[in-house]
Order: sequence, then C-alpha cells, then structure tokens
Amino acid sequence: MNTITQQHIQVGEIANGLPLTIPVYRIKGDGSGPKVYIQANMHGAEVQGNAVIYQLLEQLKQLSLKADITLVPYANPIGCNQKSGEFTLGRFDPITGTNWNRMYINHSGLVTEFVEQNPTLSITEITQQFRQRLVEHTQALLDGPLDRLTTGKRIALNLQRLAHEADIVLDLHTGPISAKHLYCPEYAKDSARYFDIPHVLLIPSDFGGAMDEASFCPWWNLQQAYQAIDREIPVLTEAFTVELGSQEKIDLAEALDDANSILSYLNHKQAFQDAHFMPQNITRYVCRLENYRTFYAPMSGMVEYTAKLGEHIKAGQTIAKILRMERYLSETSLNEIKLDEDAIAILHFASASVNQGTELYNFFTQVETL
Amino acid sequence: MNTITQQHIQVGEIANGLPLTIPVYRIKGDGSGPKVYIQANMHGAEVQGNAVIYQLLEQLKQLSLKADITLVPYANPIGCNQKSGEFTLGRFDPITGTNWNRMYINHSGLVTEFVEQNPTLSITEITQQFRQRLVEHTQALLDGPLDRLTTGKRIALNLQRLAHEADIVLDLHTGPISAKHLYCPEYAKDSARYFDIPHVLLIPSDFGGAMDEASFCPWWNLQQAYQAIDREIPVLTEAFTVELGSQEKIDLAEALDDANSILSYLNHKQAFQDAHFMPQNITRYVCRLENYRTFYAPMSGMVEYTAKLGEHIKAGQTIAKILRMERYLSETSLNEIKLDEDAIAILHFASASVNQGTELYNFFTQVETL
Amino acid sequence: MNTITQQHIQVGEIANGLPLTIPVYRIKGDGSGPKVYIQANMHGAEVQGNAVIYQLLEQLKQLSLKADITLVPYANPIGCNQKSGEFTLGRFDPITGTNWNRMYINHSGLVTEFVEQNPTLSITEITQQFRQRLVEHTQALLDGPLDRLTTGKRIALNLQRLAHEADIVLDLHTGPISAKHLYCPEYAKDSARYFDIPHVLLIPSDFGGAMDEASFCPWWNLQQAYQAIDREIPVLTEAFTVELGSQEKIDLAEALDDANSILSYLNHKQAFQDAHFMPQNITRYVCRLENYRTFYAPMSGMVEYTAKLGEHIKAGQTIAKILRMERYLSETSLNEIKLDEDAIAILHFASASVNQGTELYNFFTQVETL
Amino acid sequence: MNTITQQHIQVGEIANGLPLTIPVYRIKGDGSGPKVYIQANMHGAEVQGNAVIYQLLEQLKQLSLKADITLVPYANPIGCNQKSGEFTLGRFDPITGTNWNRMYINHSGLVTEFVEQNPTLSITEITQQFRQRLVEHTQALLDGPLDRLTTGKRIALNLQRLAHEADIVLDLHTGPISAKHLYCPEYAKDSARYFDIPHVLLIPSDFGGAMDEASFCPWWNLQQAYQAIDREIPVLTEAFTVELGSQEKIDLAEALDDANSILSYLNHKQAFQDAHFMPQNITRYVCRLENYRTFYAPMSGMVEYTAKLGEHIKAGQTIAKILRMERYLSETSLNEIKLDEDAIAILHFASASVNQGTELYNFFTQVETL
Repeated sequence: MNTITQQHIQVGEIANGLPLTIPVYRIKGDGSGPKVYIQANMHGAEVQGNAVIYQLLEQLKQLSLKADITLVPYANPIGCNQKSGEFTLGRFDPITGTNWNRMYINHSGLVTEFVEQNPTLSITEITQQFRQRLVEHTQALLDGPLDRLTTGKRIALNLQRLAHEADIVLDLHTGPISAKHLYCPEYAKDSARYFDIPHVLLIPSDFGGAMDEASFCPWWNLQQAYQAIDREIPVLTEAFTVELGSQEKIDLAEALDDANSILSYLNHKQAFQDAHFMPQNITRYVCRLENYRTFYAPMSGMVEYTAKLGEHIKAGQTIAKILRMERYLSETSLNEIKLDEDAIAILHFASASVNQGTELYNFFTQVETL
Repeated sequence: MNTITQQHIQVGEIANGLPLTIPVYRIKGDGSGPKVYIQANMHGAEVQGNAVIYQLLEQLKQLSLKADITLVPYANPIGCNQKSGEFTLGRFDPITGTNWNRMYINHSGLVTEFVEQNPTLSITEITQQFRQRLVEHTQALLDGPLDRLTTGKRIALNLQRLAHEADIVLDLHTGPISAKHLYCPEYAKDSARYFDIPHVLLIPSDFGGAMDEASFCPWWNLQQAYQAIDREIPVLTEAFTVELGSQEKIDLAEALDDANSILSYLNHKQAFQDAHFMPQNITRYVCRLENYRTFYAPMSGMVEYTAKLGEHIKAGQTIAKILRMERYLSETSLNEIKLDEDAIAILHFASASVNQGTELYNFFTQVETL
Repeated sequence: MNTITQQHIQVGEIANGLPLTIPVYRIKGDGSGPKVYIQANMHGAEVQGNAVIYQLLEQLKQLSLKADITLVPYANPIGCNQKSGEFTLGRFDPITGTNWNRMYINHSGLVTEFVEQNPTLSITEITQQFRQRLVEHTQALLDGPLDRLTTGKRIALNLQRLAHEADIVLDLHTGPISAKHLYCPEYAKDSARYFDIPHVLLIPSDFGGAMDEASFCPWWNLQQAYQAIDREIPVLTEAFTVELGSQEKIDLAEALDDANSILSYLNHKQAFQDAHFMPQNITRYVCRLENYRTFYAPMSGMVEYTAKLGEHIKAGQTIAKILRMERYLSETSLNEIKLDEDAIAILHFASASVNQGTELYNFFTQVETL
Repeated sequence: MNTITQQHIQVGEIANGLPLTIPVYRIKGDGSGPKVYIQANMHGAEVQGNAVIYQLLEQLKQLSLKADITLVPYANPIGCNQKSGEFTLGRFDPITGTNWNRMYINHSGLVTEFVEQNPTLSITEITQQFRQRLVEHTQALLDGPLDRLTTGKRIALNLQRLAHEADIVLDLHTGPISAKHLYCPEYAKDSARYFDIPHVLLIPSDFGGAMDEASFCPWWNLQQAYQAIDREIPVLTEAFTVELGSQEKIDLAEALDDANSILSYLNHKQAFQDAHFMPQNITRYVCRLENYRTFYAPMSGMVEYTAKLGEHIKAGQTIAKILRMERYLSETSLNEIKLDEDAIAILHFASASVNQGTELYNFFTQVETL
C-alpha cells in the first residue's frame, strides 16, 4: 500500500475570521514517472470530480507508482459552500461576479528571458529550471503585499503553485447538464486518445484565465521561443480540463469509470509500473474551439430540451420546444426550435425556464473524428 | 370549439415601474357543472404546471363543458423570473425570505357570523352567499390602503380572489426532485381515487398559509359550524395541491398524462358532458401528514441519492451515500445513510452537496393503500 | 484583571466538511450576581453587536464582577459569511428562506408539569431547577437523532442552550437603516429605563420563534402558572432584543456608548460591585407591538427617504418621495408619500428602489413616554 | 416649453414572456448644437442617475435648445429589478456573472476601411458617415440571428445604437459608497473642467467593454488613423462615465446639483442658447488610471471605514479599523489598516464585513490638479 499524506493549505479567511482551507493529498512514486496534479470542484456545483478523486485514491494506494501525484478535492472552499436556494451558486464570486476559473495568472512573460539566458540547457534542465521559475513567481505573488490580491486570486494562486510543480495537470469540471467532453490543447491532441471521453474540444494556446491554460501556456510559449532560435523541444507540460458530465450530481459508479479513464491516460504517460489501464475502443469526435457553437434562446419561455446529450443532430432538427403561455390565444404557444447545421449536442442550460438570450445549448459543429 | 378568453390582471409593480401581470384564461361551460380554478408556477422553478395547463387548454377547447374553468399559468411573475445562477430562485420572496405559498389569508373567521345569520339557508344558497362573502372580503383587502399590503400578499390575494369563485381548486406544484404526489384534505380522501397519482398525503384542515388551505379551510370550518348547530352539510369546496414531479423540468408528454389525470377527476366532478376520462387502475398509497417524515442530512458532504423516487424502502436500507473528502485519511469518506423504518421515498433535495441539517429526503411512513 | 476564557462550539458542518464554529467568551464573577448571556450577529448584516461585545469585553475585564457573563459574537457562522453582491444576505437561510431569528424552540410546554410537581419550592430552587430543565430539554434535542434537526435549528439550539443558563439575555441586532430601539417584554418595562435607548417596543409574551421570546416565554408562563395556583412569583428571567442602529456598519465609538448602555442596565441588575454605570437622562418613548406600524410602498419606484430616523412625524407629513421615470410624460413622476397619523420613524428599507408592497418604513404610533 | 417625446424600446423578454422595455425620452433643439445621449442605472443599485435625468428633464423643457438630447433612465430592466435580500444585486447578470457594463461592442475595427475609403472627406461628412456606419453595424448585430445574442448583449446593443447617434455620451453611474468622480478619456481632459466634479480619472483609449469606451474608442481610433495618413482631425465624440456618489441612494437636491454640473458641460459644448450654466470654481484632482489603486482587505473581519471619501490621506494614516472577534484572547482584535502612500480616498466597499481580499477602498494616487 502506498502512503498518502494530507496537508491543509489555507487560502483565505471569511468575514467571521474562520480560515478557508483546502485538503491536499499527496502520494509518491519511485521518482521515475511524471509529476501529476489533479484538482476538482473549482466551480461549486461541479461536485463529481470529488468522487473521481475518491475513486482515484482508492486505486492509487494499491498501484506500483512511478509518478508523484497530488490530488485536491474541494478546490474552492467559497464556491463549494455557496447555496442560493437549493442549488449551489458557485460558478462565480458572489461579490464580484468573476468566474472562479478565470483568475489564474499567465506566466508566459517569463519565457523570453529564460530562453535568452538558457539557449542550450538540456530538456531535463529546462523542465526543472523553468518549472522552478513558474513556482517561484507564483509564490512571490502570494508573498507580496496582502492588499494586492483579491479573494479569488489568492485561492487561484495557491492552486496554481501546486499545479506548476506538475508535468501533467487535470482540472475536473462538469457542464451544467452535459455529455462528457475534454478541453484539449491542440498540441496535445494525441493524448486525447487515451481518455474514455467521446468529445474532444481542441483549444488554441491563448490564455483566458483558466487553470488548464495557466498550466500549459507558458510551456507552449517556451517551445515556441526555442523554435524561434531554431531549437526543437516538446511542449513539456500537458494540461486538460476534463468535463465529467452534469453538475449537482454524485454518481460513484460513473466516477469509477472516469477514474479509470484518467488512469488509462496516466498509464500512457508512464505513471505506473505494470498497470493494465487501457483506453476503450470508442469513437472520439473532435471540434475546434472556433466551431464550438453557443446557441442562445431566441425567445424566452419554458423549455423542453429535446436533443439528447451526445446526440448527432441533423440540420433542421428540433432541439428544443419552447412553451410560452403568456399569450396563448394570440401567439404560437409551443415553438419548435431548430438547428441550421449538423452538430453534436454537448450541453444545455440547467434550468427549464429561460430569458431571451440565455445560453440554451452548446454544440460541436464541423466535427471530425480523432 | 369552446371560446377561451384571456385577461391580464395586474398584481403589482416592480422597481422600474413595469407592471407585474398574470395571464388568466377562462372557458365557460353550460352552467350546470362546478366552477373550477387551476393555477401553476407559484414557486418559480416549478414550471411543469404551465405545460399541464397548456395540455388542458388544448383539450378543454374541444370538450362539451358543463363547468366554468379558470386557468392561471405563471401565477407568480416575480418568482417565475428570479434566477440566481442558472437555477430559478423562486420558492420565496428574495427580499424577505417568505415562501410565496404561505401568504394566502384564512377567511375562516367569517364562518361563525355566517352560520348565526343563516342557519337555514339551502345548500345552494349557502354555497352562493358564503362564496360571495369570501370573494368580497378578499377584494376588500385588495381595495384597502395601498400601504397595508406586502408585495407577496398582493399577488396571493389576487389569486385567492379568483380561487374563491370556484368549487374546485387545483394548485399545481412540483417537488425539488420528486415523485408525483397529491396533498389532499382528509375530508376529500375519496376524490384522490380519481387522480392518476400514486402517492396521497392526507392533510388536516389546519391553515398554514397555502392556497389549498386558504381555499378549503373556510368551507371545512363552515361544515363544522353547521354540524355544531346539528345541521349536516357537505364541505362545499375541494382544493388540492398537485405535485407533478420535479422542478426545473418541462416534459410535454408527461404533462399530457397529468392533464388527463386532472380531467379524470374533473369528469368525476361532473365538469363535462359525455367525456371519457377515467382514472387509471393503480395502487394509491396514503400517508397522513404527521407521518410525512423529513430526513435531514445527518452530516455534511456530497450526496449520491440511492433511493429511487416512489421506491418502497425497507428499514435498514441505504438511502444515500455521503462522500466526505475533507479528511479522507482519518475518517470514513463514504458514508451509507440508512433509514430506520419502512417508507416510500417521495422527494429529495435538488443539489448533490448538503450542509449538516439540509433537508435530504421526504418519506411517506405508516403507509396505507386507498 | 478578570480572566476571560474562550470556547469554540461547533454548531454544524458545511458542504465541504469544514466545521461551523462559534466563539464563546466567558468571564466569571464572585457568584453573587446574575448570570448574563449576550449574543450578536445572528443576522449576517447586523454586525455592530460584535463591536459592542468588543467594547464590553474591554471594560468587563477591569470591573469587579458579581455576575457571570457569557458573550457570543458571530452567533451565526452561515449568515455572517453569506454575501450576495456587495451586501451580506444573512437575514434568512439562503436555502430555505427561514429567518435565522425564528428557529428557536418554545419550552413553555414544560411549565404545567413543573408547577404541579413543585408547588412550594423556594424562588431560588424554582430558578435553579426550572433553568436546569430548560437546559436539559434543549440539550436533549441536540443529542437526538441527527436527521431530525435542520441546519438553522441546530445553530439556534446551541445558542439557546447557552442562553437558558442565564437570568438575563440580550440579543444584539440592528434594523436595516434604523434608530436605536429596544424590544422589551411588557412585564420588564421598568428595566427599559436603564438602557440609553430612546425607543422602547413593548411586546406581549407570545412566542414567535425569536431568541428573546424563547428566553423569557417559559419564565413568564411559569409565573402565570404559579399565579393560577395563587402563588405570586416574579418572572425570573429578563430577555431583550437590542436594536443598535443600522446594519452593515461598524462604529466603535457608537459601540462604546451602546456598551455603556448595557453596562448601566447590568449595573442596575447587580452585575457589578461599585460600578458607576448609570442611565442617561433621556426621554424614552414607548409603543406597544400592536401599534408598531409597517408602512409598505404604495407604489414602486426610486425612494428618497425624507423622514429622519427618530423623527416625530405629524399626520400629513411627507415621509418619502417616490420617483417614477417610466412614464414621465403621462404620470406624476415625483410622488410625495404622506403618513396619516402622528408617529415616530424607527427604521426604513435599506435600498432606494422598491417594488409595490416592499416594507418602506416602520413607525411607532400611539406613542407614550416611559 | 420644449416638446419631450417618449418611446419604449423592447430589449428582451423574461422567462414568463413579459417584455423588457426601456423608456427613451427625446427633446429636440434647433439642429445647430451637438447630439447628446445620457443614460442611467445600467447597474441596478446605481439609481441616483435617474434622479439626475429627472432634474435634467425638468430644466431642459424650459431652455432654448440647440442640441438634440436623448435621455434613458432605467437603462437595464433586469439589473434594476434584481433584489437579493434588501439590496439590489444589479452589477452583473445573475445567471452568468458578467458585469452589465462590460457587454458593449468595440467598433474600432471599422476605422481602417473607412479612412482608406474616405481620406479627404470634410469633418462634417466624416462625422455623419462614420456615425452612420457605427449605427448600422450595431443595428446589424441586433438584426442578426436571434440565437447569436446573449441577454445582456441585446440590452447593451440597444443602448449602444442610441449612443452612437450622439456626439456626446454621458453614462451615469455611482460607486458603492463613493465620492463624486469622472471617468474621462485623456484626450478630453479639458472638458473635465466644466463638470462640478472634484475627482477626475484619466483613462487611456483602450476598450474594456464599457459604454464610455464603446462610444469614444472608434472615434479616437479614427483620429489616430487619419493622423497616420498625416491628416489632423479632432476626436469627434466625447464620452464620460459620471460617478455621482453612492449607490442605493436617491437625493433630489443632490441630483439638481449634478444636473447643473452636466448642464454646465453641455453649455460649454454649445447645447443651449443664452444659458447661464457655468462650472463652479473648485479644485479638480486628476489621477491616471494606472495610478488608481485598489486596496484589498489584507485580513477578513468587520470594518470601520475611517478615511472620509474625498479625504486627502497621508502615507501611514489609518484608513480602516478591522475588528476580529474570532480569537479575541490570542490575537489583536482591533487592527488599524494604514496606507503606505499619499492618496485621495474615492470609494469604499458597501458592506462592513469583508473576506480577506475583498476590495476595501479605491484611491487616487500620484494626484495632480487639473
């Protein structure tokens, strides 16, 4: 049995002075594998990742480990506990409205100087030293004047510091009501074959504030900068946002499947000795971010979502019925909403009542297979 | 085709001066049947009743009607439109916390004087004159000084005025995540056989502020008061809260079933000529309100609800698994929560994460069949 | 210097497993004085009571104490930390809407048996033994099955158990935007002369769920029950809700004044040896609860509150101007709202925009002086 | 008396089908003056701008007008009506968290083609034709597929279309608890002398999504593009965000002062004939945006804000006292928070209780006078 250690890191304080802490679990391998960081529940309602971490821990303690693995459930102690009515209102800071997963910092600015100073370092040295720089710069922000950091940035930076120590970063999320899908940087497309996730969203290497981007963007920029001086190195870190399904749902059997999917990817990445984890033989559909279409409610009303999640929609197919009972006598009450192109339905809004302009569905369009 | 008319009644004004209105649909019979009042969506997230009203209207316009029927979708224009995050926060006034379905007025105080003044009136006259008194007293409160009514009471009284005109009142609600069930006053127990609803909750004739109680309590008290002077009359009004299933969901096929269930009951009540609506041959389970057990979360955590809704639970059976990842190394992380008596699971909390003491489940216990 | 001890009592757990704790400070006298319980901030936005407890502690540690005093700031760790936008949304449970100060339990049901069993006990014995019964019954509820208590009730009962140990209970609140006022049970009217609070609201001894009522109702009922067997005893506990002013405001100088007001009352109650605290020579205005008038917004709009808090309004005087810019051309835009009777303005709504029916003002009417 | 006309423009629909409308008031001059657009209350709690528009209308109807003026109170019918507890939660879309004043569109992309096509147009023609292009492009977005626009963007674009018709745009806001201040683009610095606002924040011509930026950025970019082809034109539109003071407050006398301040600026801009409006002789302090310092709470607790708004703070001066009653015995309970540089306190947080990292104050630093 491998030893798991636990640390509580304090990431803030709430109004009455109680500390905000996050549990950090660490399990060490023999040092020959990659360093792995997995976190869950940055958005308060997206709880299933905690169950996946539970299922991972249950298995990791029995495996022959090469990798060092750090696992952080309950990554956001504010979002996790923020109820409004019966549901968890944990997608954004309730004071400022800022999305909790848009507060990470982009350290790509460190790249130019690093490459200038270290044109000839070995890959191992690059990995080690650039990683150290990322960690130190994150720590420096945390050690700076207390009045310079927002509540959310302090939480994000604490997590980012942990993530920067890793070669592999997995941020476990869910959609509202959602099919499983994977946010995958374009350069890491091949790795997507090792997850049991049928929908892969290819994202460019731009920084938008999310954990996956904060983790891989500096490394992608580093690779680009070496390329510019005619040296080819790989992108030395991979980071993914894994969308596990629907929010506000715990399903331990499903969590075991998702844990196995992650173990399959980690096995491919040499995290274990003699482990059997293998990807399933499924079709994986790929969509580029620019083709990931948000469909906003064209009218307000009460919605029956008729497109099944993961369903391959044909142009002209009804995706929702919107019921409008305000003017039953003078208007069409039951409105069939159709999509004008072929697509895969990935997720839809969590509520059955929408304003005009509420995000109704997200669709993969221009789909290819991996 | 019967004629449906629509009226918009104004029930208030919001801060920027826009009026709050409610659509009221009326369809008239030949005058030989009962007067029926049906409303939906008093709680903002409980939208399915609007679909049932749609399905009712679609059929009512084609039936031979004896009854006059009034239908009110979107009964609460504030609750209906109150989002907090993705979900509808429409169970209580967001300013005061008051449950929108606890603001109706009890007019049972009118009973004593009425019976003293009218000991010998015929049943028809009692019905007509007491009904008129209920309507007038409700109207009087609405016509009183504007500074005496809360926002919610003004909405409630406008609805109650409409409801008091009827012999039959149906208030369409849903639970959070819920099996279908019916709140049925004990005296109207036999009528529960005509709805296609397998779970019947028998409530006493106490007033707690809800629409069903506001509608039937005065009539029940009237019957009691006549009995006290040795005159037996029936309770001249029936009122039910119909719990259609889960909130935040529109399902038009299910709504058609529920419309048919209501039409079956109304048919039994002589609302139609030559209509075919009949109750289904199902077992109806009955539970008295005092045995309707709320089970609060004994610990905080992330919940997998393992009891199926409508499931007959045995004492000792696991009803939920609560995952706690804060102290994985020192505590049991996965906790099986068991019930200590036989029961039927009627509804559970809408979110997968709970505080200690959050309402986890409601159960029918001490169940009998109707 | 007196010794202050601190205990943290756990009153629940939030979703991610972090414990909810409340700090309890105790300072012991020589045993010859009353037992005193003071709590603050049961409603999240009503923070000034914490500053008053700070100022009390600063002074209490230097006084010659006869009384044992227990002080509880931050009484509600959920409400205290519940922000929605910039403001604290801590007046009701965000999940259920229940007012946090309506969840206490009425133990008046213990009275009948106690008096039957103990018709001739001495006052000292009555105090001791009935108090013990109150504490035990509260503790028994806390020790009962975990699935029987809501989140809020568990917090309330933990506080109530502490309060029942005391002869004097002060629950520190504030209004929204408010003048200082005191909720005072009618039987304790004379004690109101010792607080420096110019507005006294006399409340009957009915139970509505609040801390003050939970504390004194059983004792008032006990006195009534002894009276019914022809024995006169005093009401052996006094409890007040002290409304310190406006919510969302900390003012340490004002808190010192309020601490001195409380010390004056406690000095009168023999809490100290040789202390100088004396009530100020101010006029105290008294209003019975039935005359405490809530004035709801007769129209929606944007409000300029023109009545000063504590101001003696004359019938016909303008108390607010309501601006309505939706129909500037066709309606009066600026509406003067007048009161139709003499009154003292005690508090008004916290926001400048109101729906029709929002609670605009509370007024003392039918005012007398103490 | 000038004629005022009113139009209601529909900017969306809420869930129950009721339309969201905005009142638009127009008053026409003789055609010789500028076109002016003034809106208020985009953020729900920032209501005072409606009172300023009221005071403007009251005066404008009596003046000799050269300008055409459009005034829009209640610019955001969702934010305006979104209460959460007693306060207005109208700073961001309650569903998505997006700040309502970050949803405007940047049309600077139209500049390059326009300048290429029209190198030699007269200033008047440039104004007219580029303005038309801005209006048309905004309208085109509104006329596009309904499923492409979010709720907030639809509101914003409707307002932006109106704003683009004007040479002068004023967006009336307030801070949380705030001194009056003006967001002023650097190029329009001289115009700041004509408002009676003592604090001027100079902003660069970057686009961040706000109304003022959406209004002036394309014109500033146009001026830059002509400059690049060696033609000097002025920036042909001025836009300001006017911060009137504190949110959740209506003060009609203050609104009259602010109306006069705006009339003074408009008079300077030739909006009136023979009008007497003149700026007051006050010192105007200027701060560049990069020196506008946000001071986040270095610790959580209950805050007494001791820096007065508009106060000139010296380095080392206490700006707040933070009370922490969780560990009274083991920590400093009352903490003096000091600023480390000279500054002017412009605004502070609206609540007295803060998390670590809550935005406590905003300060002008590196202040100069205008």
